[in-house]
Amino acid sequence: MANEPKQDRSRETRRRLLECTMRMVAERGLQGTTVGLVAEEAGVSRGAAQHHFPTREALMKEAIDKLAHERTTALSEAMAALDAGPGGAPVEDVLRLLFREFSNDLFHAAVHIWAGAAAEESLRDVILPAEATYNRRVYELTAAALHADLSDQHTRRLITMLLDIARGLGLSSMLVDTAAQTERAVAAYSRMLGSIARLDD
Amino acid sequence: MANEPKQDRSRETRRRLLECTMRMVAERGLQGTTVGLVAEEAGVSRGAAQHHFPTREALMKEAIDKLAHERTTALSEAMAALDAGPGGAPVEDVLRLLFREFSNDLFHAAVHIWAGAAAEESLRDVILPAEATYNRRVYELTAAALHADLSDQHTRRLITMLLDIARGLGLSSMLVDTAAQTERAVAAYSRMLGSIARLDD
Repeated sequence: MANEPKQDRSRETRRRLLECTMRMVAERGLQGTTVGLVAEEAGVSRGAAQHHFPTREALMKEAIDKLAHERTTALSEAMAALDAGPGGAPVEDVLRLLFREFSNDLFHAAVHIWAGAAAEESLRDVILPAEATYNRRVYELTAAALHADLSDQHTRRLITMLLDIARGLGLSSMLVDTAAQTERAVAAYSRMLGSIARLDD
Repeated sequence: MANEPKQDRSRETRRRLLECTMRMVAERGLQGTTVGLVAEEAGVSRGAAQHHFPTREALMKEAIDKLAHERTTALSEAMAALDAGPGGAPVEDVLRLLFREFSNDLFHAAVHIWAGAAAEESLRDVILPAEATYNRRVYELTAAALHADLSDQHTRRLITMLLDIARGLGLSSMLVDTAAQTERAVAAYSRMLGSIARLDD
């Protein structure tokens, strides 16, 4: 809109730059992503981009925080939408969401960032706390969806295991479409969990 | 040696170029690794490097194959060296080897390659079969070390699960030292496996 207040336009530009950054990182990796390329992709002048993010590091820091935030928001909404009975949502449904969470574009972007951070140490200080917060949040969301009793050590270990498995499955999805593999994993691990614990009682 | 036959020198140059390639990929990622930089790092003239590997793609293809081969050779030797009783090696020892396998430099190089392959489609045709062979071999080595009965579907699933877990744990090791975390995981998963199946009978 022509009459859109200047502040809204500025916020919208910032949002677009951050989104382009995340998409570019997911596609090309951290090293292939620069403020100049992001500005071009977002249809923003280089000067405007530099006004928002004076350095590549500033852009990356905010993009990484935004990425962690978006990942948990999407999972939180999906978990909340599950059809939960009094004993929690069906294990299969929770596993499906969890496994898909670790094979979507946002996860791929995160792997690119981890890989790239090996060469860009200055970003580690942003990535590590963002990742720790993300992992804690996914753990909590999964436990809540399953109505898991976290006072039980065995249950806590099971949930940690599910997260390790989800991350491991997700890595394969970097290269190939793992939709069918994910469905097989959902079925296999639901059965296996059934024989370990009665999470879906 | 000055009298070293020409063929041996050539083989040694090739080996050195491939090793530098793997180390560079592990440190900087796929995109940061070029024939020129590798030649410089290996102390080989650019012409000699290009004689061995006319294109970056040729270099990468052989490095990826060599990487997959080295990963299984090291694991195979380590598994064979385990102190196995008549019922197979202790579960803890096998898990420790498996978890460490997915957090060593070679694994980090592999993750860099997967991440980079998103931007370099021509490498996928090399990566996918190399990775499939590698995964099958790790599965076989783990099953053999545990003296696992692969005719049992539950056992097959357990071993697949261990590999998924190992890959998931390994991803964290891209950014932080996970030695202590790995030891905790070895203890926790050994106990957990004990309550699922009697792999260490």
